[in-house]
Amino acid sequence: MSEDVRIMVGENVRRLRLAAGISQAKLAERMGVDRAYISGLEKGERNPTVVTVWHLSKALGVKMRTFFEEKDKKGR
Amino acid sequence: MSEDVRIMVGENVRRLRLAAGISQAKLAERMGVDRAYISGLEKGERNPTVVTVWHLSKALGVKMRTFFEEKDKKGR
Repeated sequence: MSEDVRIMVGENVRRLRLAAGISQAKLAERMGVDRAYISGLEKGERNPTVVTVWHLSKALGVKMRTFFEEKDKKGR
Repeated sequence: MSEDVRIMVGENVRRLRLAAGISQAKLAERMGVDRAYISGLEKGERNPTVVTVWHLSKALGVKMRTFFEEKDKKGR
């Protein structure tokens, strides 16, 4: 279902942000967006465009494809 | 530059569509969109959302991350 992809991307944004050791506010500042946008994104409530995902990849210093990694069935 | 990501995604859509051996019209039909949308997407003129990329991945039977593979510097 397409909602699942929003949740998957949101979980990856959160995982990568925590790995980068920065807060939602810091990520929002780097991207020039509101903290509430990042919060909604991580909860799977947003449907970002590829350009937004590109900005996320620059802000977190990761490749774009990392936002689309699917947890294997055991949830790792 | 963010335009580059639109071009990169468009080139990957085209590469994966041709690998699947289907026309733009056939891909558009599978996704329930207009052929002109697919044409513009492949030319890097669109800024699709992650849900649209999800529909593309289902229509072409590929993983979402394949749309974000960057050609290495030698253009392969």
